[in-house]
Amino acid sequence: MTGKPKVLIISDITESNPTYIEFSKKFECIRYVPTTKEQLFTDLQSEKLRDVTAIWAMWVGFAELGGTIEKDVFEAIPLSVKVVSIAPVGYDRYDIDFLTKRGIILTNNPGLGAGAVADIALFLILATFRFTTVLEQSLRKERHVFRSREVLNSDKFVTGIPSRREENVFGFGNNIGGRTVTSPGGKRCGVLGVGAIGKEIIRRVVAFGMSAHYYTRTPLSNEDLATLPASSMTAYSSLDELLPNCDVVVLCVPLSARTYHILNSKTLALLPQGARVVNVGRGGLIDSEALVAALDSGHLTTAGLDVFEGEPQIPEILLDRWDITILPHIGSATQETVITAENGIMRNIENVVLEGGSGITPVNKIR
Amino acid sequence: MTGKPKVLIISDITESNPTYIEFSKKFECIRYVPTTKEQLFTDLQSEKLRDVTAIWAMWVGFAELGGTIEKDVFEAIPLSVKVVSIAPVGYDRYDIDFLTKRGIILTNNPGLGAGAVADIALFLILATFRFTTVLEQSLRKERHVFRSREVLNSDKFVTGIPSRREENVFGFGNNIGGRTVTSPGGKRCGVLGVGAIGKEIIRRVVAFGMSAHYYTRTPLSNEDLATLPASSMTAYSSLDELLPNCDVVVLCVPLSARTYHILNSKTLALLPQGARVVNVGRGGLIDSEALVAALDSGHLTTAGLDVFEGEPQIPEILLDRWDITILPHIGSATQETVITAENGIMRNIENVVLEGGSGITPVNKIR
Repeated sequence: MTGKPKVLIISDITESNPTYIEFSKKFECIRYVPTTKEQLFTDLQSEKLRDVTAIWAMWVGFAELGGTIEKDVFEAIPLSVKVVSIAPVGYDRYDIDFLTKRGIILTNNPGLGAGAVADIALFLILATFRFTTVLEQSLRKERHVFRSREVLNSDKFVTGIPSRREENVFGFGNNIGGRTVTSPGGKRCGVLGVGAIGKEIIRRVVAFGMSAHYYTRTPLSNEDLATLPASSMTAYSSLDELLPNCDVVVLCVPLSARTYHILNSKTLALLPQGARVVNVGRGGLIDSEALVAALDSGHLTTAGLDVFEGEPQIPEILLDRWDITILPHIGSATQETVITAENGIMRNIENVVLEGGSGITPVNKIR
Repeated sequence: MTGKPKVLIISDITESNPTYIEFSKKFECIRYVPTTKEQLFTDLQSEKLRDVTAIWAMWVGFAELGGTIEKDVFEAIPLSVKVVSIAPVGYDRYDIDFLTKRGIILTNNPGLGAGAVADIALFLILATFRFTTVLEQSLRKERHVFRSREVLNSDKFVTGIPSRREENVFGFGNNIGGRTVTSPGGKRCGVLGVGAIGKEIIRRVVAFGMSAHYYTRTPLSNEDLATLPASSMTAYSSLDELLPNCDVVVLCVPLSARTYHILNSKTLALLPQGARVVNVGRGGLIDSEALVAALDSGHLTTAGLDVFEGEPQIPEILLDRWDITILPHIGSATQETVITAENGIMRNIENVVLEGGSGITPVNKIR
């Protein structure tokens, strides 16, 4: 190798980012937009790419090829690659064992966008208690303040936007579709997963007058508790003990074999009558069919989801329901997150390629 | 008068409210649903109503007749009426001088639902920073996580939901319609009106990592400041000094001659480029045409409105815009607010009618 080490950049970057301007002096940065898997395989063997030392895979990276990363993509990566540096916190789409065997370090950005994800959790908590997003859609349809609040006083319908009740009644907006609108204040917020995101959620919900309830396998340290509103927090020793004490439960644990479908028909039944469910973690944490059944039966009042099973598709049964607020996985989607992620990606690549390190925030360990 | 004093109740009530069960033992409670103004005038002169001592007017009360309360309605009230007890905080729809001249005490519920209104303010702040409600509508239309985030990278359109960009690009969601999506964290939240609602808003925004900026004609007392996150707050000596320091400004002052169109083309221009506007006070606080012009010019990024000029109608120019999140004036619309309001209404009526007082929370003073 005579020139600067090559970095294959898959995805948009912020060219004005000062860190990138410095980075691009040290590396030959090759921008690449994948089209098809076959084309990618061919290109990876080309003269230009066959000696790349690092892959910069912003966000879903290779998932642009269709939403999933399969083993054959990594099999096609040149042997020269030492590090795959990705933007997100989560790496459940990657086959870590295979990467380790190939001698490739995978680095992520732990804690990235935790505050931004917590903001979206709060948006969804407010939507599930106050029916705000269904009311906005009703207002856009009815075009009149009172009429938009007079939504059908029946719990028989589930899909679409509720129709207006046609009687001569003043809708104050405290009853939507036969379900009572209540304040989050004074209610119990269960937080499943007290990592960086969970902590940010707890700080916010307490400011709304909620109490925070949680379960963790390893107890929080005194250092952790010192940064949290501990007097408004209650710890439980198991999920089964936590759930009956949640007026709303927010999921922000990583997806793993242990947490797959952690909310299912059995555990949803442990929530109190009328509870709400918010998911900002991963879609696979909830059994979608069980969630819909719990809403249809009236056991749950509402749900708010930023993540879905089988993304980028969305399960048909979760779309078009007025009692589920849906967002397109934008938990961490802010400009601040992009810059922080880019800087983390570059720092990891520099560490591995230029400093001979094993990554600043590596996911796996290469012996 | 031989029987129990009569109370004319205009609007829904919660019959299971224990306070009402006690109240109805002391008063003859007459439920009445207005249909037309003419019918109301006739009924008010009927034997049944012509000796009522109190009027219980939940929410807009007489406004059910069409949205506004005109002097002739009060002129038609029997002379026996000593108190009109209303649910809301705001009484801008009522002619106080006329009521005082007629010797009628008007009572309201100061501070009612302040936390609930602050919750809606936070929902709208999150919507204006994170484009959440437009993204939900895009997701319901596109039915695919990535596609819904790829909204047109142009600021040429203003109405409807932005169209999807058709190029092969992965939309992370940090740019919507050519406008940058940023976190509220680290930004400056201006609060116009530091009454009960404003204080609740300040407590919440600080938990999101925002700083709070405010202007009040009378400085906050030390008692007030002791209950607030004072180290994150900055006071300004005028509106003109406050506005240039607001990444978002939230309106929660009462509507009066002084505050009518307090945000107009001149004051909106004082906000920094890219600022956001949230209104949970009254529609008349903002000049709607000036707001739309500031959005169209790109000076403002987004707006979130729970209140409108000319409610229950909504100005046509504010509907159908993807850069304005609209709610049907539901700031205080929760079950908790209803019960608290009913209890306040009853306590005021008891005080005036049974105890000969001048109201627990009177708006006017009868000599």
